[in-house]
Amino acid sequence: MNTIGSILTLTTFGESHGPAIGGVIDGVPAGVDIDLDELQHFVDRRRSGCYPGSSSRDEKDRVEVLSGLWKGRTLGSPIGFIVRNTDARSGDYEAIAQCYRPNHADYTWEAKYGIRDPRGGGRASARETVARVVAGAIAIQVLKPLGITVEASVYTSGDATPCVTTGEVERAVADGDTLGGIISCVVRGVPAGLGEPVFGKLHAQLAAAMMSIPSVHGFEYGDGFDMAAKRGREVMDVFERRQDGTIGTVTNHSGGIQGGISNGEDINMRIAFKPVPTLMRPMPTIDREGNPVSLQPRGRHDAWVLPRALPIVEAMAALVILDNYLIRRTNVY
Amino acid sequence: MNTIGSILTLTTFGESHGPAIGGVIDGVPAGVDIDLDELQHFVDRRRSGCYPGSSSRDEKDRVEVLSGLWKGRTLGSPIGFIVRNTDARSGDYEAIAQCYRPNHADYTWEAKYGIRDPRGGGRASARETVARVVAGAIAIQVLKPLGITVEASVYTSGDATPCVTTGEVERAVADGDTLGGIISCVVRGVPAGLGEPVFGKLHAQLAAAMMSIPSVHGFEYGDGFDMAAKRGREVMDVFERRQDGTIGTVTNHSGGIQGGISNGEDINMRIAFKPVPTLMRPMPTIDREGNPVSLQPRGRHDAWVLPRALPIVEAMAALVILDNYLIRRTNVY
Amino acid sequence: MNTIGSILTLTTFGESHGPAIGGVIDGVPAGVDIDLDELQHFVDRRRSGCYPGSSSRDEKDRVEVLSGLWKGRTLGSPIGFIVRNTDARSGDYEAIAQCYRPNHADYTWEAKYGIRDPRGGGRASARETVARVVAGAIAIQVLKPLGITVEASVYTSGDATPCVTTGEVERAVADGDTLGGIISCVVRGVPAGLGEPVFGKLHAQLAAAMMSIPSVHGFEYGDGFDMAAKRGREVMDVFERRQDGTIGTVTNHSGGIQGGISNGEDINMRIAFKPVPTLMRPMPTIDREGNPVSLQPRGRHDAWVLPRALPIVEAMAALVILDNYLIRRTNVY
Amino acid sequence: MNTIGSILTLTTFGESHGPAIGGVIDGVPAGVDIDLDELQHFVDRRRSGCYPGSSSRDEKDRVEVLSGLWKGRTLGSPIGFIVRNTDARSGDYEAIAQCYRPNHADYTWEAKYGIRDPRGGGRASARETVARVVAGAIAIQVLKPLGITVEASVYTSGDATPCVTTGEVERAVADGDTLGGIISCVVRGVPAGLGEPVFGKLHAQLAAAMMSIPSVHGFEYGDGFDMAAKRGREVMDVFERRQDGTIGTVTNHSGGIQGGISNGEDINMRIAFKPVPTLMRPMPTIDREGNPVSLQPRGRHDAWVLPRALPIVEAMAALVILDNYLIRRTNVY
Repeated sequence: MNTIGSILTLTTFGESHGPAIGGVIDGVPAGVDIDLDELQHFVDRRRSGCYPGSSSRDEKDRVEVLSGLWKGRTLGSPIGFIVRNTDARSGDYEAIAQCYRPNHADYTWEAKYGIRDPRGGGRASARETVARVVAGAIAIQVLKPLGITVEASVYTSGDATPCVTTGEVERAVADGDTLGGIISCVVRGVPAGLGEPVFGKLHAQLAAAMMSIPSVHGFEYGDGFDMAAKRGREVMDVFERRQDGTIGTVTNHSGGIQGGISNGEDINMRIAFKPVPTLMRPMPTIDREGNPVSLQPRGRHDAWVLPRALPIVEAMAALVILDNYLIRRTNVY
Repeated sequence: MNTIGSILTLTTFGESHGPAIGGVIDGVPAGVDIDLDELQHFVDRRRSGCYPGSSSRDEKDRVEVLSGLWKGRTLGSPIGFIVRNTDARSGDYEAIAQCYRPNHADYTWEAKYGIRDPRGGGRASARETVARVVAGAIAIQVLKPLGITVEASVYTSGDATPCVTTGEVERAVADGDTLGGIISCVVRGVPAGLGEPVFGKLHAQLAAAMMSIPSVHGFEYGDGFDMAAKRGREVMDVFERRQDGTIGTVTNHSGGIQGGISNGEDINMRIAFKPVPTLMRPMPTIDREGNPVSLQPRGRHDAWVLPRALPIVEAMAALVILDNYLIRRTNVY
Repeated sequence: MNTIGSILTLTTFGESHGPAIGGVIDGVPAGVDIDLDELQHFVDRRRSGCYPGSSSRDEKDRVEVLSGLWKGRTLGSPIGFIVRNTDARSGDYEAIAQCYRPNHADYTWEAKYGIRDPRGGGRASARETVARVVAGAIAIQVLKPLGITVEASVYTSGDATPCVTTGEVERAVADGDTLGGIISCVVRGVPAGLGEPVFGKLHAQLAAAMMSIPSVHGFEYGDGFDMAAKRGREVMDVFERRQDGTIGTVTNHSGGIQGGISNGEDINMRIAFKPVPTLMRPMPTIDREGNPVSLQPRGRHDAWVLPRALPIVEAMAALVILDNYLIRRTNVY
Repeated sequence: MNTIGSILTLTTFGESHGPAIGGVIDGVPAGVDIDLDELQHFVDRRRSGCYPGSSSRDEKDRVEVLSGLWKGRTLGSPIGFIVRNTDARSGDYEAIAQCYRPNHADYTWEAKYGIRDPRGGGRASARETVARVVAGAIAIQVLKPLGITVEASVYTSGDATPCVTTGEVERAVADGDTLGGIISCVVRGVPAGLGEPVFGKLHAQLAAAMMSIPSVHGFEYGDGFDMAAKRGREVMDVFERRQDGTIGTVTNHSGGIQGGISNGEDINMRIAFKPVPTLMRPMPTIDREGNPVSLQPRGRHDAWVLPRALPIVEAMAALVILDNYLIRRTNVY
């Protein structure tokens, strides 16, 4: 349940305020050169930083790779890694432990497990995504020499204009309020033939991977939801033989995937994030006995996290694409 | 790759014009009464019928259950079933075999496997969904006595008005064109506590299941993509203790799922379908050598299939919910 | 739970006296020529026949392949198949339904599922192995052009002499008693490099596959249990470079597998079967209320089944080897 | 491939001379009290120590649990842990890196991955079993309050007498030679109903788990290989109703498992280990170019490891039993 993937798998562990977050990446082919500085650099992108709405609170997440590499090259054995948690506040979570924060997993986690780690969300905290980013950084390094690249960007936020404005975020911060937004992601250089035709359609795997990122509420690829309002003729991607002899489509309404299998065009998708659930103002809720209480947030929190989510989206895309790249090798006699 | 689920799994097989479509449902608990007439009735909903845009071509799909039941009750052993294909046209697919239909899986299937069943799409045909519906019908019967129900409806189509109009579909048919649309689905009665907190978030599983249905291009739950344009305060689902002592939320922007785990509220989602790819007019494409050709569709095809997709959506939702219902049993000591 | 394999999977269904036994073989590479007559011939080997101890009761099991092939060649899609049960006795199982046959799964199945199919063992009958043999027949046809062959033979039986004698079986039949035995299996032509180093050691996978065959009580490979009584120097397989430049070992105490990975030598193993549990004489047992009863076997039963188990053993070996052959393709960058 | 289990899974990582061995235990139910001292004590049993044939080289393996516990109780989230390697010799492995040690995985690992960690066996070293023991220690603590216990003991060794003698081991050490042996394991208190009827038979899962332990060459349960030489009447476990009203069998030739499902009797099995492959004397082999070389072992090595393997066997048994205990909860409506 804490594992994703089929041939290339990522298994993660760790609570937000426990000793460490970590994971195991299994199935990476042997013989790939991994640049650990580049890996650390990719992970650093996930920290909050100097953009509007950021709380600038986080320290650096130092990745410690524990296995799977020998002289900088993958061995074929699982790559285990940990990232120590430095923000191990003890004692200031008792208030939270007794009530359910709105739009968090406090109530549902207790409903499922009968017990909950009250320290900052525990396993349900977005802190777990650091393990995704470590694994994604490795997948990206495996894909790069194959000519496959992944790039995410903030597509829109707040009032659905093409791009979020600094003013918009600043107004939300001033109100003690928060914002969400949409992230766009494109994967370039994917060869035709990746993905499974029925349950494992490439876009179904991408959807599952993206929807598993905390706060995501929607996924679409190609023309997405707009497809629903169009006629068949409007979205038809006509094939053509190009000058280099390859086959492609003139348009790309299909988003690079047809019948669940990549067709060689750019794979593009959009992922919708809800606003950050923790406001910087009192929030009404109930305690574990059902009594109404007002929850006063402590510390600093990001009002807008989309820039931090970019490497997470890229990581999930890379993991899915690499997994399917490997599966593809087993398809033909 | 042709299997979905974790404890409750569905494995399917079958090409559109081969002898049969079938599947194996594994993990259904022992001791559930299954009404085979009700099952057949549910499967019948997937046939084309008397709604605008339907070609009324299909014959009845007769389900033959081959195992797993004893005197109408589940044994705990896998439920195998087949549905014979009656539309076994031979010979009239040679033209299609030599070219790639736009927005179909012809090209991508060949790119993946190097070989393709040219008879009506083969495994890539939406015909495979009959196996999903059979399995879903059983899952629904397992869920019903538990108080869990699933209901899908056509949310919108064509020009994004709240509901599709007969005139709209008729105009598309007259133009030889096709339509897509959005299906809304709600699952009621789900207890709090279903879903996995990280990669197997309940909505991630639902997204994967829905996105695996042919022609689906988008998925959202709760306030979905609209979430991205709202502020945190606008979408906060405040908890309350109800008169019956249970805990719930005053609003349901979260769509019944928080932190990937059900919270007891209705689970609602929307699924976007692209227009039917096969037009009833000549379509430009290329043959396998890359030469431009015009493809003239044969036979009759549906111009609009959303009503037929309703039981498919319900089936996928039921399979995911039942799977997580069973997993939930293993969570607490 | 009714699935085996990782990339190449077999999912089976069917009770002994239900309408059919069947299965789905997923992951067979596209482009393999399958000879259905040869497949049927292999399945026929599993029937009882003209050897001592055989009851000669069974009719032919006719395999109906329902998907995955196009003009005799694999498509990459799942291969679904069924074998109809012709021995659908109704009514004569009521006595059995009320008591627990010794050394059968009657009691344990009820303990697990609370319900049991009383018709001839239901899912727990060795009848399910027909699906294994069908799948194995296909795996063998995939392996053959790769130079990999599987061969099982009766190693010993009864009193542990090198081979069973006709007289021995006849004496057991005359006593209304039954025999078991040991089957030896060798896989030739396996390239070095198949198998996973830790949990998925090639011999661990083979052990699981063989131990899953009904009546099996032991598994060993290479020098097996004899290894335990030897010194390290006695079982050392010294490497050598052969005249053709390949590397091999002078001896093969390791049974073709070192560190869980094939080394290119013949893979050999032995599988121990318990005696057939159903005697042809009254057997003491208890009914469901715990009262002692005497169970009188009906119909004819085999007193010795090892010759029928040979294709089952070969099937399981072929499935494991092919699965690992495909996984191997993903190991190197 | 580095994961074992279905609901309860263990994923491990780590090379023998890398920074650490570690793992992730997923699926442990929430609400179990875990005693970390007891866990460490169990892991200590795996160290070499004061028995004949032991090299007494190893330092203590200190387990660091990184997640999944809160105030000593399981949260339902994955339990991540690491054990640092203290024996990080650098530089003295160059000789080994250029040749293939007999009966080790050096050659096969290279055949599979094209690259090899030359430091003491890397991932193929038995050092990986420390992660199994950590996980098993937790599984044992989960099982204990349920009344289920696991106990392994050295069954025989060397010349197949009932128990190994000190003199025997000392003679082997004096010769620079090594010994293997047989370990017996019994699981008590397992309720009837655990295990899957077809591919996941309880003994098939146990076989796979035990055969995955380094050096294991054989597995049997109940009367095992002896079954093959007996008649049906000799091994019939007759049912009886006991004075406390429960149903059991008078004898236990079946080893506590019938039809792949536990029957409530003691589950017993025997596991055969080959002699330690590294002798304390020169061993003939070849280098990577195929030239004959003599390999002189360095450092100290155990001549006999069976006592160290006891907690490993117990760990694997506990993991399998707990996994099936949890699966069992999903079987009945």
